Amino acid sequence: MFLAKVYISLKPMVNDPQGLTIKQGLHTLGFAQVSSVRAGKYLEIQLDAKDQLNAAAQVKQMSNQLLANPVIEEFRFELEEIPP
Amino acid sequence: MFLAKVYISLKPMVNDPQGLTIKQGLHTLGFAQVSSVRAGKYLEIQLDAKDQLNAAAQVKQMSNQLLANPVIEEFRFELEEIPP
Repeated sequence: MFLAKVYISLKPMVNDPQGLTIKQGLHTLGFAQVSSVRAGKYLEIQLDAKDQLNAAAQVKQMSNQLLANPVIEEFRFELEEIPP
Repeated sequence: MFLAKVYISLKPMVNDPQGLTIKQGLHTLGFAQVSSVRAGKYLEIQLDAKDQLNAAAQVKQMSNQLLANPVIEEFRFELEEIPP
């Protein structure tokens, strides 16, 4: 059993209204030293796979097919083996 | 200048309809080996601070005040120094 931690964020050139809104919220709360906020998604996925290589291939395929929008988003992930 | 990577996820006991929906979507696409999906948020925040300790204190305060809902969510973060 593997645990994949998938981080999905907008590509640097893509406009991020959610991040801008969070930044304004932080400024309103007094955190004036914040210069940029980018918002993304974080997923923890448990999956069965015969080895780490196979698990990585599956997570990559899932991310491209469903989890991320490859046109505007990029993703990275970490894998760790967990007891079943 | 520091870059904080903040990971916000629902506490383990909290129901996660978004994660369940993603799991069902993955099953529909043929990824039957996925047993659990938990959805969360991922934020990249650039901020000015005089040192790493001060930056960490700020990010913790921001997370508790605005970024995460401490009742149902938990957060963790990483800090790295970046050139201004």
